[in-house]
Amino acid sequence: MSSQIAPATLEGWYALHQIFEVDWAAVQALSAEDRAAVADEAASLFAAWAEPASGGWSAAAQVVGKGADLLFLHFRPTLEELAAVQRRVRRSRLGRFVRAVYDFVSVTEAGLYYATARAAEEHEPGSPPFQAALAADAEAERASPHVQTRLFPTVPEGMRYISFYPMTKRRAGEDNWYSLPVGERSRLMREHGLTGRRYAGRVFQVICGSIGLDDWEWGVTLFARDPLEFKRIV
Amino acid sequence: MSSQIAPATLEGWYALHQIFEVDWAAVQALSAEDRAAVADEAASLFAAWAEPASGGWSAAAQVVGKGADLLFLHFRPTLEELAAVQRRVRRSRLGRFVRAVYDFVSVTEAGLYYATARAAEEHEPGSPPFQAALAADAEAERASPHVQTRLFPTVPEGMRYISFYPMTKRRAGEDNWYSLPVGERSRLMREHGLTGRRYAGRVFQVICGSIGLDDWEWGVTLFARDPLEFKRIV
Amino acid sequence: MSSQIAPATLEGWYALHQIFEVDWAAVQALSAEDRAAVADEAASLFAAWAEPASGGWSAAAQVVGKGADLLFLHFRPTLEELAAVQRRVRRSRLGRFVRAVYDFVSVTEAGLYYATARAAEEHEPGSPPFQAALAADAEAERASPHVQTRLFPTVPEGMRYISFYPMTKRRAGEDNWYSLPVGERSRLMREHGLTGRRYAGRVFQVICGSIGLDDWEWGVTLFARDPLEFKRIV
Amino acid sequence: MSSQIAPATLEGWYALHQIFEVDWAAVQALSAEDRAAVADEAASLFAAWAEPASGGWSAAAQVVGKGADLLFLHFRPTLEELAAVQRRVRRSRLGRFVRAVYDFVSVTEAGLYYATARAAEEHEPGSPPFQAALAADAEAERASPHVQTRLFPTVPEGMRYISFYPMTKRRAGEDNWYSLPVGERSRLMREHGLTGRRYAGRVFQVICGSIGLDDWEWGVTLFARDPLEFKRIV
Amino acid sequence: MSSQIAPATLEGWYALHQIFEVDWAAVQALSAEDRAAVADEAASLFAAWAEPASGGWSAAAQVVGKGADLLFLHFRPTLEELAAVQRRVRRSRLGRFVRAVYDFVSVTEAGLYYATARAAEEHEPGSPPFQAALAADAEAERASPHVQTRLFPTVPEGMRYISFYPMTKRRAGEDNWYSLPVGERSRLMREHGLTGRRYAGRVFQVICGSIGLDDWEWGVTLFARDPLEFKRIV
Repeated sequence: MSSQIAPATLEGWYALHQIFEVDWAAVQALSAEDRAAVADEAASLFAAWAEPASGGWSAAAQVVGKGADLLFLHFRPTLEELAAVQRRVRRSRLGRFVRAVYDFVSVTEAGLYYATARAAEEHEPGSPPFQAALAADAEAERASPHVQTRLFPTVPEGMRYISFYPMTKRRAGEDNWYSLPVGERSRLMREHGLTGRRYAGRVFQVICGSIGLDDWEWGVTLFARDPLEFKRIV
Repeated sequence: MSSQIAPATLEGWYALHQIFEVDWAAVQALSAEDRAAVADEAASLFAAWAEPASGGWSAAAQVVGKGADLLFLHFRPTLEELAAVQRRVRRSRLGRFVRAVYDFVSVTEAGLYYATARAAEEHEPGSPPFQAALAADAEAERASPHVQTRLFPTVPEGMRYISFYPMTKRRAGEDNWYSLPVGERSRLMREHGLTGRRYAGRVFQVICGSIGLDDWEWGVTLFARDPLEFKRIV
Repeated sequence: MSSQIAPATLEGWYALHQIFEVDWAAVQALSAEDRAAVADEAASLFAAWAEPASGGWSAAAQVVGKGADLLFLHFRPTLEELAAVQRRVRRSRLGRFVRAVYDFVSVTEAGLYYATARAAEEHEPGSPPFQAALAADAEAERASPHVQTRLFPTVPEGMRYISFYPMTKRRAGEDNWYSLPVGERSRLMREHGLTGRRYAGRVFQVICGSIGLDDWEWGVTLFARDPLEFKRIV
Repeated sequence: MSSQIAPATLEGWYALHQIFEVDWAAVQALSAEDRAAVADEAASLFAAWAEPASGGWSAAAQVVGKGADLLFLHFRPTLEELAAVQRRVRRSRLGRFVRAVYDFVSVTEAGLYYATARAAEEHEPGSPPFQAALAADAEAERASPHVQTRLFPTVPEGMRYISFYPMTKRRAGEDNWYSLPVGERSRLMREHGLTGRRYAGRVFQVICGSIGLDDWEWGVTLFARDPLEFKRIV
Repeated sequence: MSSQIAPATLEGWYALHQIFEVDWAAVQALSAEDRAAVADEAASLFAAWAEPASGGWSAAAQVVGKGADLLFLHFRPTLEELAAVQRRVRRSRLGRFVRAVYDFVSVTEAGLYYATARAAEEHEPGSPPFQAALAADAEAERASPHVQTRLFPTVPEGMRYISFYPMTKRRAGEDNWYSLPVGERSRLMREHGLTGRRYAGRVFQVICGSIGLDDWEWGVTLFARDPLEFKRIV
């Protein structure tokens, strides 16, 4: 019975989303010189983080609403590098003038839905042949450009609007996603994928998994040229 | 099967609702001169925002309850303009004496329920002919005075009471609005519309969509001459 | 089909419940003179508000538990008067030494359950004859001493204990009160009324509606000579 | 039909549970002398409150976890006495160095499950004979040592561990405890009682009702010699 | 009928999880000397707590996300020792520069699922022979190396990543875990155990029970060499 198989996943960069509120009164109490020093340090941090030697990237955006002012988004190959970035932000001059409103830790993820369903059709789920079939498929899929883009995302030029929301497929109760047969789940995900494709070129989507890393199961980060696209795809 | 079609929508101005608490102790510690300066700056901001060159408008209202004192409501053609308004409020003198209690980002919206249902009867939902039929109808509807009022609302004179509440048609669970056949949904919305019409002239209603922009799906802002109308329409 | 009719209601005074925590450290840091000034101003406010010229009344009570110290309860004929009271409290000397823990805005309400059910038996709900029948009944009921007491409550002497709780008849989900046939609902409310009557003379109950005014649908304020009555009636 | 009868209850002392966090930095900034003065005042308050002239008692305990440091537990014959204790704590020197994390107001309670079921078998629930039968039984039960212990609890020597949790038998939805026939409920409570008895001598349990007094329906306070007993009884 | 039997458990060390946010601005305002004094004291506390004379251990870790900076994890034979550790942390120099974000009190636990099911097959649950059979099995199981590892855990070298989450098997509603027949539950737990074993050597898992000690029923603490293991096992 294949209904209890969680689909295998591939992982890429770790991700940290940070949402901050600025203490404007404190900022305005600074001298023009000090304010410039705060901004200059932040600018040079993000300049250095646009393309770190070890991989990944960081970006900053202005937030409308949510009682917040800033979104910092960091991708890095290891949790240690994320931790170092987090510490560096907190210890920066800007760090004294912002309050963390929300943060989210996750890792970019590509689900092997087809591969898992295929392996489950031919082998006893969890058995060594099943794992071997899955591992072989996983290696092939990891090398594909499509999966490389999901695991190590580069945002297309000009998509300067960002929408982020954590998401869960609830494990408890009667809507238990994990108790759907994996074949059915694969179909649902394909539909989701089709929806995604219809927006290809207009919305760029990064899926991160956060099970065991944060309170939610997934985080979805959308990038677009026009914020109305967010209303249409979500 | 037409049951999974989300109705197409038209969008107009972006909207930002801001609810603030005043730090009265700090205000009262100001000299009469400084207090006047705070009030004057706020007054001239809203004077300038009553009819911004690029479109939209802003209004301020006093709040009873909710641990709050002030509601600022801003409509603007772009998210960037909303962000600029948000920054301007935070950096104003008044900004140092208020604490954000709640805010909400959305965009005025008119749902094409009839058009979607009609297109779904004649074409395969999502297919090119369906999209074309829908687009043609959308253009016609956008030009209608009724839709122009929903997308670019002007509040009738004298309706000085405001009631705002975010709203969701829950997507999860057995009350899944999005799994109703679109025909049934169209009927429900018409009933809702009828309720609305019965109050025409006594309540003015602005519907904003916030999917992908905020935590809720919709925000409803009501304007009335008599606050008891809110109890009757909601 | 009468099942979707919301019962008509009559409204009286607007109500504001305010719950505050006192900053005792700051109070104790005051000189005896300043402390007396804070208390004197508060006392004279409530003396003036015991019987305002325009109608309504205000009362203050000590709170046990809820991390709170004070409950202020205000009834006024208009929202503007409530807003003025709210501002006056915040700007008072006491206002600097209290923190708002909770507040609630509503309006006293008497539901026309019988009248609505009766009108719905004879006329098409919502039709002009239905509205006319309802309006005629409403006028008669408004004049009755029973309804006058509900809309413009005067608390019997000596009932110095107060219990307040917001309440909702949930509109969503399968417990949807509003989808009960109005006949059935009328019966339920009569049962509720009977429970109430059994406590007549021992508990005085003020029902306020808050749809469109606050997050809840209703607020119930109970007054009693003996706090154990609250356990028995709720 | 007896299914809607809430069981009659007997009440004893009012109870106030207070949970505090200590501001250790402020405490450590005190001189040794001032720190001793804070501790001495608190000690003499609790010495006086160990056996107040009017009845009841107070106790203090150290809290592990919950971001808290102290639990104060007060039993008193009247709400006024509880209010006076609350005020006295807030105005004490210690009161300036603690922050209220949680509090709970209730009254010790013994449910007359058997008596209510018995009266409901012989008389129309709510009728005068029913009330008379119940009142007669209530008087007899109140005098029994078992009920006296529940209403005016004295904790056995050496039970120095305390576990407190508020509890509700949810009134809404399909788990509606109050819609169980009272006979069935009586059986359930007896089972609960049996569980309790199995731990007799190892755990001492105080049940308080809080309907109309706090957000929950009941508060359970457990005392034990060994904290592992809490895991087994709850 | 065996369906209401809660499985017997064995308990070992009490555990306190503490999550803190660092006040970096205050830390950076310290002189280099003072900062070193804060760090030195913390380091020597954890050096002493790595192997306390009475048993247990403490460890500190850096936190990514959750608005937090530090996780302190303490195992001790008694609640009193945990309380002393908690007080010592709060009173340390570091204690003045951290804010508690979350904490959790529990005790390591090994469930006697097999033993309970076996005893329930042969004896009336709760009866003296049932208790005797269970007690005999419990003694044998407690001595086993497997159970000793669960009750008095020593983390394998090099597993420096930690994931902690509180967990509940909801007692209320239709998902009532405690109303499953104990035989079925035993099977579910075995499945859970099998999942665990598949990760043996890659993830080390400590299960703590918190019924009567904290708001949740269980806390799971995972240790791994590679944080991606957390995504796979949870």
